[in-house]
Amino acid sequence: MLRTHTCGELRLSDKGKQVILCGWVSKIRDKGSLLWIDLRDRYGITQLLFDEKNKEALENARSYGREFVIQAEGEIIERVSKNDKIATGEVEIRVLRVTLLNAAKVPPFQIEDETDGGEELRMKYRYLDLRRNPVRANLELRHKMAQEVRKYLDLQNFIEVETPVLIKSTPEGARDFVVPSRMNPGEFYALPQSPQTFKQLLMVSGFDRYFQILKCFRDEDLRADRQPEFTQIDCEMSFVTQEDILNTFEGLIKHLFKFVKNIELPELPRMTYADAMKFYGCDKPDTRFDMKFVELNELAKGKGFNVFDSAPLVLAICAKGAGEYTRKQIDELTEWVKRPQIGAKGLVYVKCDQDGSYKSSVDKFYKQEDLAKWAAKTGAEKGDLILILSGEVNACRKQMNELRLEMGNRLNLRNKDHYSCLWVVDFPMVEYGEEEKRWFAMHHPFTAPKPEDEHLLDSDPGAIRANAYDMVINGVEVGGGSIRIFNKTLQAKIFTLLGFSDEEAKKQFGFLMEAFEYGAPPHGGLAFGFDRLCSLFGGAEIIRDFIAFPKNTSGRDVMIDSPSTINPVQLNELKISVNQ
Amino acid sequence: MLRTHTCGELRLSDKGKQVILCGWVSKIRDKGSLLWIDLRDRYGITQLLFDEKNKEALENARSYGREFVIQAEGEIIERVSKNDKIATGEVEIRVLRVTLLNAAKVPPFQIEDETDGGEELRMKYRYLDLRRNPVRANLELRHKMAQEVRKYLDLQNFIEVETPVLIKSTPEGARDFVVPSRMNPGEFYALPQSPQTFKQLLMVSGFDRYFQILKCFRDEDLRADRQPEFTQIDCEMSFVTQEDILNTFEGLIKHLFKFVKNIELPELPRMTYADAMKFYGCDKPDTRFDMKFVELNELAKGKGFNVFDSAPLVLAICAKGAGEYTRKQIDELTEWVKRPQIGAKGLVYVKCDQDGSYKSSVDKFYKQEDLAKWAAKTGAEKGDLILILSGEVNACRKQMNELRLEMGNRLNLRNKDHYSCLWVVDFPMVEYGEEEKRWFAMHHPFTAPKPEDEHLLDSDPGAIRANAYDMVINGVEVGGGSIRIFNKTLQAKIFTLLGFSDEEAKKQFGFLMEAFEYGAPPHGGLAFGFDRLCSLFGGAEIIRDFIAFPKNTSGRDVMIDSPSTINPVQLNELKISVNQ
Repeated sequence: MLRTHTCGELRLSDKGKQVILCGWVSKIRDKGSLLWIDLRDRYGITQLLFDEKNKEALENARSYGREFVIQAEGEIIERVSKNDKIATGEVEIRVLRVTLLNAAKVPPFQIEDETDGGEELRMKYRYLDLRRNPVRANLELRHKMAQEVRKYLDLQNFIEVETPVLIKSTPEGARDFVVPSRMNPGEFYALPQSPQTFKQLLMVSGFDRYFQILKCFRDEDLRADRQPEFTQIDCEMSFVTQEDILNTFEGLIKHLFKFVKNIELPELPRMTYADAMKFYGCDKPDTRFDMKFVELNELAKGKGFNVFDSAPLVLAICAKGAGEYTRKQIDELTEWVKRPQIGAKGLVYVKCDQDGSYKSSVDKFYKQEDLAKWAAKTGAEKGDLILILSGEVNACRKQMNELRLEMGNRLNLRNKDHYSCLWVVDFPMVEYGEEEKRWFAMHHPFTAPKPEDEHLLDSDPGAIRANAYDMVINGVEVGGGSIRIFNKTLQAKIFTLLGFSDEEAKKQFGFLMEAFEYGAPPHGGLAFGFDRLCSLFGGAEIIRDFIAFPKNTSGRDVMIDSPSTINPVQLNELKISVNQ
Repeated sequence: MLRTHTCGELRLSDKGKQVILCGWVSKIRDKGSLLWIDLRDRYGITQLLFDEKNKEALENARSYGREFVIQAEGEIIERVSKNDKIATGEVEIRVLRVTLLNAAKVPPFQIEDETDGGEELRMKYRYLDLRRNPVRANLELRHKMAQEVRKYLDLQNFIEVETPVLIKSTPEGARDFVVPSRMNPGEFYALPQSPQTFKQLLMVSGFDRYFQILKCFRDEDLRADRQPEFTQIDCEMSFVTQEDILNTFEGLIKHLFKFVKNIELPELPRMTYADAMKFYGCDKPDTRFDMKFVELNELAKGKGFNVFDSAPLVLAICAKGAGEYTRKQIDELTEWVKRPQIGAKGLVYVKCDQDGSYKSSVDKFYKQEDLAKWAAKTGAEKGDLILILSGEVNACRKQMNELRLEMGNRLNLRNKDHYSCLWVVDFPMVEYGEEEKRWFAMHHPFTAPKPEDEHLLDSDPGAIRANAYDMVINGVEVGGGSIRIFNKTLQAKIFTLLGFSDEEAKKQFGFLMEAFEYGAPPHGGLAFGFDRLCSLFGGAEIIRDFIAFPKNTSGRDVMIDSPSTINPVQLNELKISVNQ
């Protein structure tokens, strides 16, 4: 080793030792006869002291710049002015000898926790951005999480099996990335959007408990926080009910919180999809704060206020402590819900004043005792603010979800260091595509209906609940899955419901259906979005920060400048042409 | 859970317990009033007993066939005739109730350790092949090995960082698989042949110790045991010398042998490339057996035997105990070395008879005392056989390597359960391509020369030894790597030597070279072929058996029938055409 210790491990108890450290010059302070360098490596920072007793070292040090790579040898001494902000802050190295290992150009931005580099510059020089503590810490967290996932699942008898990356394209669902095959001209592999069929085949093979942490790929127009390649924790189990899967992966998430964040998670609550929609207006409620939807239909209708009278749904939330909101704040909030992204027609409020009276934008139509009933129903007390939206059921719920989250933000109820996890269960099996005029699988076509709902298959498919579940943390869906259909007859019925002809079903899922004829066990599973999970654990919102070399929203890696044109020989060998 | 226990865990101490098991019907024996089923799952086999006391169960059982999936409930009883070949062989379940979970068609081949299914059929129904114990055991071994690799490297402070799969094509080296980019028409990603540049960038980023178990891709015409996608254990370290890397990964391989195979490995010997070529004729010697090459030039020349006199090299090996080989056996061996694949012109032998005399094919030219000297030099004793080849140095070594391995096979010296590991070090930095008339990097263009050889850069580049190393187990290269060049000036010189113009070097490696200007630490690393390592640990030769869903030698997955044509809409969106 070129060093005896790292820059993060020396303490006062090491005083007097001769050591050799290697690292990057982080800061230089030159006081003439004395010079200090903060030497940085992955493990920390140690202060180097150069003085006139070791003149050569001092002069060498003086010639160094930021981010030079050096090797320094010397004695550990106690610092006069200690730094309690870093673990090595009680000591410094009085340097005897120093060697320049590699010089460095001045970096295009500061390698500091708070950098002056813009997003684009930092992406182009990602290898320098990765030197910054917060970015490195994100990837260390990711490593730790992957290790703990594997540790837990291994202990639960799961086997990690690598499924292929070069697979077959299926026209259903999102777009595949494809790979032309040189050995099979005119034919293409596809990169997996998920290893769904392979993990189900592994259950048919009797693997019983499978997992994999793997890259998946989706050729979508990228929204702000989507990556064309992303990482999943993919799992499947045999001979289980939904209950077993929920327990097993509740165990996993508890294990992660305990060993990565030192947080003991309580038992995860379970919420039906129907309740999630009713009380939160979305299937991934942020339950860090309450502010549940309250339906005011009965109380608000029939008092002459036409807006409410004509609305199928009148929904209220109670914003605790927001009763002091000024007229201006409420006007601004009203504009906010009326933006096209939200699409509400207006916002009704009721302020619960400290004197027990109510002030409302609909005073004209409702008496104080009417409003008191609203307050009672929403749980509003003195000093609270009731916000009310009305309209078509789905639209109103969607708008109220946005408003609730916004109020959560404004009232600082969405603390990134607080975690609220739950299961959302009993998803509908199918949803109706109004445009396409047909049923679509809400999860995927292999999702099993609840046995007690199977009889609705012909009469009311939209009412069938599936054995499907999502894990939601802080309003983010971090994972989801289902119990799979393993019975050929039922599967055929579902395919018919989803509008697949026998031929299409056979073409797309033929080998899986055939496999199911050779003794498929009852099975189910789920997948976690690992990038997302890491960002949540890191208390951040952007998954890109938890990926070593991410792509931008055009799917480009600006550091290596990819994708790029390839040479004509390659195209020729692949027997493909680029269209002009 | 649909079961209380697995089929592998019940013992006599569990006698009297009520249990529920699930699994596949492996065997049925029907004796009329009694019927037995061997029930199989991943964990083992448990015998089920059906009798007339539980008539319904008996009748159900009678209707089942091989590979039916069932759930059986009953009491654990002691078996009358015990089976000491399986762990559960002392007990059976007297079944009270049995439920059919799924029926099965008769599988196209027997799900047995020794199956009647041919390779092609087993690949088409890989999910059934995976049900067989030996195949499942291979993948369980693979899982265990991956877990242990991660455990060891995590303890050594390595961080697993995921590098991108969609990267940039480089024309050097083997062919890339490419992926057309829809969002960037006319441009392509490439799948990585190795994450070499990314891991070096991570060192520039200060990650210090990186590893990853990842899929890599190579679009080569597949030989028998190559796969288009394969798995590597990829590692890199900073602030290290070659010695540190050898020690760290010798530690890894010892850890694996200890915790996976329960074998305590001795310290790994190190052999220079020069010695490997001299004594074994190849850079990955199988050191499970001795039979080193002995040069007979001095002893064999000048006695009038023109073949030896005119040959630059006369090489002998001593095949212990093969002195009894018949004339027929030796003739057959002579034909073997003369096959075009080996290419020797002939084979000279000396039999060391029990009476102390020597019988040789070149008796005419050499006296008994000459042959005695050969015997002394090769260490041949009574009952041994000396085999001699001659010719051009490289060709002769190559042929003798083949002959040595063949004799190792014939004399049963290559036991798959014995492991002989070593490091081969001091590889030449470059080799000369006679055809292309230029120097090629033996490892890759970033490999550092030994500092003491750097002065040969202009005068004799072929003599420069690199800080490059391979780990060899039982004649198989399982891993290799090098100390990297981290100095810009030296790197530029090497690029020139390898015939890169400044412009080409910049185009291909520009961003890495630029990164090196911002403070690159001294670093080096290596990569293990994980598929190969698993097959070695599994005592097998075919890596395909250690991959869950492998491709055939045409790069096809015959189970999912991939690659395949894609629909015109997809091609259109990608703005590419297939050439007719």
